Amino acid sequence: MNHQKLQLADLARLVQGEYAGQADLCLRGLASLEKATSQDLAFVNADKYLEQAAQSQAGALIVTAELKEQLRSKHNFIIVANPYLAFAILTHVFEKKHTNRGIESTAQIHPSAIIADSAYIGHYVVIGENCVVGENTIIQSHVQIDNQVEIGNDCFIDAHVTLTGETKIGNRVRIHANSVIGSEGFGFAPYQGKWHRIAQLGSVRIADDVRIGSNCSIDRGALDDTILEQGVIIDNLVQIAHNVKIGANTAIAAKCGIAGSTTIGKNCILAGACGVSGHLDIVDNVTLTGMSMVTNNITEAGTYSSGMGLLPNQQWKRTVVRLRQLADVPLTQLVKRLDHMQSQIESIESTFKLRK
Amino acid sequence: MNHQKLQLADLARLVQGEYAGQADLCLRGLASLEKATSQDLAFVNADKYLEQAAQSQAGALIVTAELKEQLRSKHNFIIVANPYLAFAILTHVFEKKHTNRGIESTAQIHPSAIIADSAYIGHYVVIGENCVVGENTIIQSHVQIDNQVEIGNDCFIDAHVTLTGETKIGNRVRIHANSVIGSEGFGFAPYQGKWHRIAQLGSVRIADDVRIGSNCSIDRGALDDTILEQGVIIDNLVQIAHNVKIGANTAIAAKCGIAGSTTIGKNCILAGACGVSGHLDIVDNVTLTGMSMVTNNITEAGTYSSGMGLLPNQQWKRTVVRLRQLADVPLTQLVKRLDHMQSQIESIESTFKLRK
Amino acid sequence: MNHQKLQLADLARLVQGEYAGQADLCLRGLASLEKATSQDLAFVNADKYLEQAAQSQAGALIVTAELKEQLRSKHNFIIVANPYLAFAILTHVFEKKHTNRGIESTAQIHPSAIIADSAYIGHYVVIGENCVVGENTIIQSHVQIDNQVEIGNDCFIDAHVTLTGETKIGNRVRIHANSVIGSEGFGFAPYQGKWHRIAQLGSVRIADDVRIGSNCSIDRGALDDTILEQGVIIDNLVQIAHNVKIGANTAIAAKCGIAGSTTIGKNCILAGACGVSGHLDIVDNVTLTGMSMVTNNITEAGTYSSGMGLLPNQQWKRTVVRLRQLADVPLTQLVKRLDHMQSQIESIESTFKLRK
Repeated sequence: MNHQKLQLADLARLVQGEYAGQADLCLRGLASLEKATSQDLAFVNADKYLEQAAQSQAGALIVTAELKEQLRSKHNFIIVANPYLAFAILTHVFEKKHTNRGIESTAQIHPSAIIADSAYIGHYVVIGENCVVGENTIIQSHVQIDNQVEIGNDCFIDAHVTLTGETKIGNRVRIHANSVIGSEGFGFAPYQGKWHRIAQLGSVRIADDVRIGSNCSIDRGALDDTILEQGVIIDNLVQIAHNVKIGANTAIAAKCGIAGSTTIGKNCILAGACGVSGHLDIVDNVTLTGMSMVTNNITEAGTYSSGMGLLPNQQWKRTVVRLRQLADVPLTQLVKRLDHMQSQIESIESTFKLRK
Repeated sequence: MNHQKLQLADLARLVQGEYAGQADLCLRGLASLEKATSQDLAFVNADKYLEQAAQSQAGALIVTAELKEQLRSKHNFIIVANPYLAFAILTHVFEKKHTNRGIESTAQIHPSAIIADSAYIGHYVVIGENCVVGENTIIQSHVQIDNQVEIGNDCFIDAHVTLTGETKIGNRVRIHANSVIGSEGFGFAPYQGKWHRIAQLGSVRIADDVRIGSNCSIDRGALDDTILEQGVIIDNLVQIAHNVKIGANTAIAAKCGIAGSTTIGKNCILAGACGVSGHLDIVDNVTLTGMSMVTNNITEAGTYSSGMGLLPNQQWKRTVVRLRQLADVPLTQLVKRLDHMQSQIESIESTFKLRK
Repeated sequence: MNHQKLQLADLARLVQGEYAGQADLCLRGLASLEKATSQDLAFVNADKYLEQAAQSQAGALIVTAELKEQLRSKHNFIIVANPYLAFAILTHVFEKKHTNRGIESTAQIHPSAIIADSAYIGHYVVIGENCVVGENTIIQSHVQIDNQVEIGNDCFIDAHVTLTGETKIGNRVRIHANSVIGSEGFGFAPYQGKWHRIAQLGSVRIADDVRIGSNCSIDRGALDDTILEQGVIIDNLVQIAHNVKIGANTAIAAKCGIAGSTTIGKNCILAGACGVSGHLDIVDNVTLTGMSMVTNNITEAGTYSSGMGLLPNQQWKRTVVRLRQLADVPLTQLVKRLDHMQSQIESIESTFKLRK
């Protein structure tokens, strides 16, 4: 946590909000309602947090006007329409910034590479032929930038990232530690019982404002390129195979895997550990809940799910036994047969009564 | 395998056991019953391995007194209450130790960092401002230790690990190669169709005796810290999101993912590839079998499972068809209706008989 | 993409095919039917691509004799029995090759290590005691090769790979960036509520022609070795635990995990994100579809599957409710009871009619 101090009125102005209380109240940082001290700012995003907010030691609270009305015991506020967005903006104020500029003496940079003066190139970075690193871009220690890779302005590439396959990266792209972009796609031609490697000749194109987590693998295309459109955000340990295309502003949570040549639309959300087969199309505005398994095209926007959820182990064992029987039980017929037999019985009963 | 030689009586003493046979028998190493030679020590842990033990070429066997009685053809033993534990202890005797001490000339260490004299700092390690590395801690090649990271005594940090986000690490912690600790959590505020990054201001706190495998991602907290309590053990390729808290002595197998702000209790066991949603609480002493999917709190200790298991592909296809019908089949009613119709039929039959 | 130019007749000869059209047509590269220009070669592998082929701008097409007959509007062809294989072969012609040889001045190599003259050792590579690197092997930047590791001829080891645990690697092996081979297996003996680490004394043996993707973890054995047989191909983010054995020519797609001591046969195919429990045996020629969950031995060759597939979220919620009831519904009895009741009803009805 940073120890920069800012005043309540200034912070309110930064988020285009209003303040209530002591304008010159000094705040040291942001904190959760639970952990905040009198020097911290916290946020309240919904009625359900009101009790926690009332008990919080926070020096000031980011709230809506409505929430403020319900927090009479508190005195210092920043009042905005969207407290969560205001909080998101203020995290950048309190974040420690990388202020290093220039090239560390231990970096190995090919003479043909073009590095902007305002960029930072960390220790033991290796940059190959014809690479480009843009203005204000920060390359942390041990990054490997292979030949022909180009990186735009204002990017952040963390330690041990491998950029290869002639990857082209836009502006304001963040790639976290130990991810691999542009590695060889998994392409093999089976012939006479062996796998014959298909050299991968495509590349990876990453548009502006893309975010990639740590330990991700994003492969270069076989012939055409693998593409991440503008504003795509990707969490950790995600696999993006060759020739995948991810539409703008789609969010992919940790441990998802997208197999080769699949296209995912814009504004989709994939929760954690989803698997998507290859050569599929998923339209815009699709949400997949966690661990979803996609084996067919998705042609309509909406929310989709897989998985049986969690069961106590003994019940699960019995359920699995039933599932193994299910293939041979004509479920939809069962109900029809029951209905039919019910009417037979009723018919018998009514005839019976008539005869009495 | 090491080529250090130790005598049977000495090895027995190291595990507080007794030996039987030739006290000065020289043993070169540990091996499986199948692969052991006359210079190797092997262990027998249960009756089911007795036949394999009888046929083993091992020079000596670690056994219980009961197992020894059933191995009359063998002569050299170490007799203990818990052979598997004795084996675990003896692996440390035969393990090759890192004996390097000091700082390699190629390491880049910020002047403000404090490195214990007995530590080892490998080639091309980069250590930032105000970092601390404790006594006897080994840092292998290419590790990146970002500003304000602190590491205790007797730790082992393998090659290409990235430690960032002001992570604080206790004593006797082992982190295997290419893992990333303290990277930015996946926090974004959606606003007007775009994702607005929330700078992550929390850290990671790792207690004593924690073990983390290779290629893991453990993110720093958004505001509060991500916490691994004492004795937690984690396998490879595991995702621990921001603000997760893992209780003491919990074991997490490979490829698990724990989403943000979830708390897992003490002494839990997560088998491979489990997924746990965010903002959940799991109590102490919960076991999850492999590939479990947790989307709700778990409030009672016990074993839980998910998944349908494996089916031959043709049966699986028919099963999936049935599963798609299942939502519209009132399963519990079916049995009730059957019971009801049965009684109707019996009533008709009995009336029928009366009238005969 | 490479800018080397080759003539149609030469390319046909390289794949033991025949050409039709302009023998000296210069081709710059391979491309997909969709993106190809008049300077590119594309391939047609099946009737379903004929329309796309007819509309392609490709300068020449790789086809079978039968496909050629259906592409009358086109003039330049390479005619072969297996166009996909010919394409695979030609990717190597157009691939950019690593031509570097020798040892970069920044590499740290222990004096006892043996490095072939024709090998390339990149910047900041660290090589320990008694290591061997064979002829024409390329080691990219920042690779860590720990003591006693041996690598054969014609291998490619990409940046940030960690090779440890005395791993032995054959010829023509490719390991992509940031993978970890030979790290410590996840072995712990539980005792008195704590986990006691079992030092891992086995190694990893990788045979000829194995391919490992990026961000993989392949652990050293506990006592015996972890083994990948000849021609195994592995995609990204795959976990291979200690003492696993993978048979020759088996293919493992991204995000699979194989738990400890499991043996997988030859010529198997594991699609993405499969999980295989520990201590299992899977015979040769088994195919697992994506996200399969294997908890028992597989004793017969064939294709196996798991998972319920994807459902619209509302249907999925109802399905999960039914699944939770399934354990207590005697599915196979239901049909029998229905049949029995049907015959009762029919018996009543027929008796009834008789009496009319």
